[in-house]
Amino acid sequence: MLNLKTIQQKIISFRNGRDWAQFHDPKNLAEALSIEAGELLENFLWKTTEQSRNLSPEELKKVKEELADIFIFLTYLSGEYKIDLLTEVENKIAMNEMKYPVHKAKGSAKKYTEL
Amino acid sequence: MLNLKTIQQKIISFRNGRDWAQFHDPKNLAEALSIEAGELLENFLWKTTEQSRNLSPEELKKVKEELADIFIFLTYLSGEYKIDLLTEVENKIAMNEMKYPVHKAKGSAKKYTEL
Amino acid sequence: MLNLKTIQQKIISFRNGRDWAQFHDPKNLAEALSIEAGELLENFLWKTTEQSRNLSPEELKKVKEELADIFIFLTYLSGEYKIDLLTEVENKIAMNEMKYPVHKAKGSAKKYTEL
Amino acid sequence: MLNLKTIQQKIISFRNGRDWAQFHDPKNLAEALSIEAGELLENFLWKTTEQSRNLSPEELKKVKEELADIFIFLTYLSGEYKIDLLTEVENKIAMNEMKYPVHKAKGSAKKYTEL
Repeated sequence: MLNLKTIQQKIISFRNGRDWAQFHDPKNLAEALSIEAGELLENFLWKTTEQSRNLSPEELKKVKEELADIFIFLTYLSGEYKIDLLTEVENKIAMNEMKYPVHKAKGSAKKYTEL
Repeated sequence: MLNLKTIQQKIISFRNGRDWAQFHDPKNLAEALSIEAGELLENFLWKTTEQSRNLSPEELKKVKEELADIFIFLTYLSGEYKIDLLTEVENKIAMNEMKYPVHKAKGSAKKYTEL
Repeated sequence: MLNLKTIQQKIISFRNGRDWAQFHDPKNLAEALSIEAGELLENFLWKTTEQSRNLSPEELKKVKEELADIFIFLTYLSGEYKIDLLTEVENKIAMNEMKYPVHKAKGSAKKYTEL
Repeated sequence: MLNLKTIQQKIISFRNGRDWAQFHDPKNLAEALSIEAGELLENFLWKTTEQSRNLSPEELKKVKEELADIFIFLTYLSGEYKIDLLTEVENKIAMNEMKYPVHKAKGSAKKYTEL
């Protein structure tokens, strides 16, 4: 069973072995993450909703790689600011619970500013 | 100490309580992730590298929220395809180790296709 | 009737009056354009194809603003490299005509690498 | 001398010859534009500001193609909503002149909400 801390350390150690921390300022990392998000999206372009749920094995393979890339850049950015990502996620869920109370948000795709 | 599985379940349970799975096909989720990546990047726009390393507390707060949002959409997408994200990350690191061998990639920002 | 050259000069003159050329290196401009593209996309998130064709007047207003913003950053980037955008577009159409010959591409959403 | 209307008609005619209008709903077009913006940005990733101003001829060639692609998708989106893009740009400049008055915005990279 893989462990989050172990993976995060592998990610950092992969970089340090290549002396890449010098390129990894937050501005560049945020660019990289945005580029990867575009590559992820490309897998769904021109597809219908139904097609996006039923990828071929080849397409799924590419999607998995993009998801992994995005996680890797999330890890570098979190490391840069010494953030514990899971804590931030927990905080964000708590915020979202206030922005999107069940009785207002249930079944609606509206943004909280319009609820 | 927060646990990855627990957080992932919180994320899924937040959604299910709001009946939002109906909107969460992969095409829409990839769009959402890309939009959030753009919002993350906006925090660094017009900044120098140095400035991006030295955010104000207010700026850092926004960055943390965007990182959390991106993690949340990664979780939904992984759930959609029943992927274990950490396994995919480990596989991707192994691939990257072959694409970027230390003796070629050390200290270089070139893409593997140019190494 | 508006003229392209006149509009491009207005865009440049808007910037010069504010002394913003100092921020407008291509790296930052490409970030800005990508952020605006994300804001454009946000108008279609969670929408069906049909809904995206039938925006409310308020939604359409926002879409128009994002399209304009993207054109503005295209203009700055073209100016930076002293490119005539229309010439580049004409060249690209010629390339696309070779990559996507009618007899292969007609009615297909496949990428040229898969045709 | 190339003419905007002529180019826009070429872009539309390229599509119609391939029977692609069926894929070109605004949601997909906005995805496509966002993906292209990511590809544009990739040309500047890991580069310094100075390097982004001094691209090699090969890099510049790629940048030109991405700018053209973005213009092409802008044209499709404008056509979809029967918008005259130049008019929208002119309107947006007028709005920006109010949001960013010279005496406040001169030499500042701040967003209008912070001026």
